Amino acid sequence: MKNQIKTIAFDADDTLWQNEEYFREAELKFSELVAAKNPDQVIQSLFEIEMKNLPMYGYGIKGFMLCMMETLHQLYPENLSSKLIEGAFKIGHELLQKPVILLDGIEETLSHLFGKYRLVMATKGDLLDQERKLEKSGLAKYFHHIEIMSDKKPANYQKLIKHLDCKPENFLMVGNSLKSDILPVLAINGFAVEVPYHTTWQHEIHDEPIEHPNFYSVNSMDQIIHLL
Amino acid sequence: MKNQIKTIAFDADDTLWQNEEYFREAELKFSELVAAKNPDQVIQSLFEIEMKNLPMYGYGIKGFMLCMMETLHQLYPENLSSKLIEGAFKIGHELLQKPVILLDGIEETLSHLFGKYRLVMATKGDLLDQERKLEKSGLAKYFHHIEIMSDKKPANYQKLIKHLDCKPENFLMVGNSLKSDILPVLAINGFAVEVPYHTTWQHEIHDEPIEHPNFYSVNSMDQIIHLL
Repeated sequence: MKNQIKTIAFDADDTLWQNEEYFREAELKFSELVAAKNPDQVIQSLFEIEMKNLPMYGYGIKGFMLCMMETLHQLYPENLSSKLIEGAFKIGHELLQKPVILLDGIEETLSHLFGKYRLVMATKGDLLDQERKLEKSGLAKYFHHIEIMSDKKPANYQKLIKHLDCKPENFLMVGNSLKSDILPVLAINGFAVEVPYHTTWQHEIHDEPIEHPNFYSVNSMDQIIHLL
Repeated sequence: MKNQIKTIAFDADDTLWQNEEYFREAELKFSELVAAKNPDQVIQSLFEIEMKNLPMYGYGIKGFMLCMMETLHQLYPENLSSKLIEGAFKIGHELLQKPVILLDGIEETLSHLFGKYRLVMATKGDLLDQERKLEKSGLAKYFHHIEIMSDKKPANYQKLIKHLDCKPENFLMVGNSLKSDILPVLAINGFAVEVPYHTTWQHEIHDEPIEHPNFYSVNSMDQIIHLL
């Protein structure tokens, strides 16, 4: 990989800044809101509704909010109390206003790589929400380009690489999700470095080990400097 | 303007394809859903809630759906019947699945301009929803670049132009909204052509006449060919 990489793309949520625990916390609050029901089952119902709606809503907080409403409706098919509706809106609005907390070593790593490589941020999620997080993060200055993607399949990366006027063999993706950041990039012959995060969304879990000459895994972000 | 333009950006909703009447139709259905209330007042309440939430949700159907829910909650502060919740979801899901109907002369105009200018699509709205509409439209092949913008303020256009490696004096924006497509582009010294649409969202209305050397207005899309 050394000497070959020209463009490095970083996933954002749970790679640059913490995100997943905010959703886990929101799910927990949601299960507490409907305290009359079994909490695990509430969270499972919400997840199933999210998966059902994913092709229609895509990723992000607004879709999550609509899924909370639909779950409430499923749990209380007759009618919904004002307390439940307000509670779900409150959980969603809190999510939209969470602080952006950078993960360890991010700022140091980006400032070290800046100028030596073309740095890109490539993330899924709500357009406005991701723009807002980027602004709050103070990291925008490091990135040549920001790509907010509706999905992270090989075809989406192919489009991104073409747009960046780059070749797969000169492209490195860094992220926490094997399913979204690593496998699709390896599939198009790019390089990929996994920086695992302690919490993974059920939908992003990939359990099989990856063996691929273009694949690396490090324990913390600053270690990618030594790989390059 | 002739001989100066190198890049032409097109707004999408109500410029390339019809959109606004789908939202007007959805509002009407929503007011019929809550038939016990005055329909004009229901639509007005929904609009006010949309405006209040715009900075938080941004543009697009998912935000509209959340605003319908919030309006229902405001109209029925005690509890919400299953019929109302299902009705609002149905209106939203129908909106997400509307066919994409191209406006007159679009395909002919784009195919005439293609190869002579760099063509770009620049639109607001939900990321996934706009990508889906573009795919359904069959127009993707004409565009060098697709920009889905969280807002259309001068700073957003400045960023787009910079990203396209273009100068304002070589940039032409074509769209139906004076507020979103024309004024912010004139403000950064680009060129702008208005192609009015018969319906305008309350939020996009701009009543004062525009006088600016870089501003043109035509009655139909194919007329821009004669301007260039």
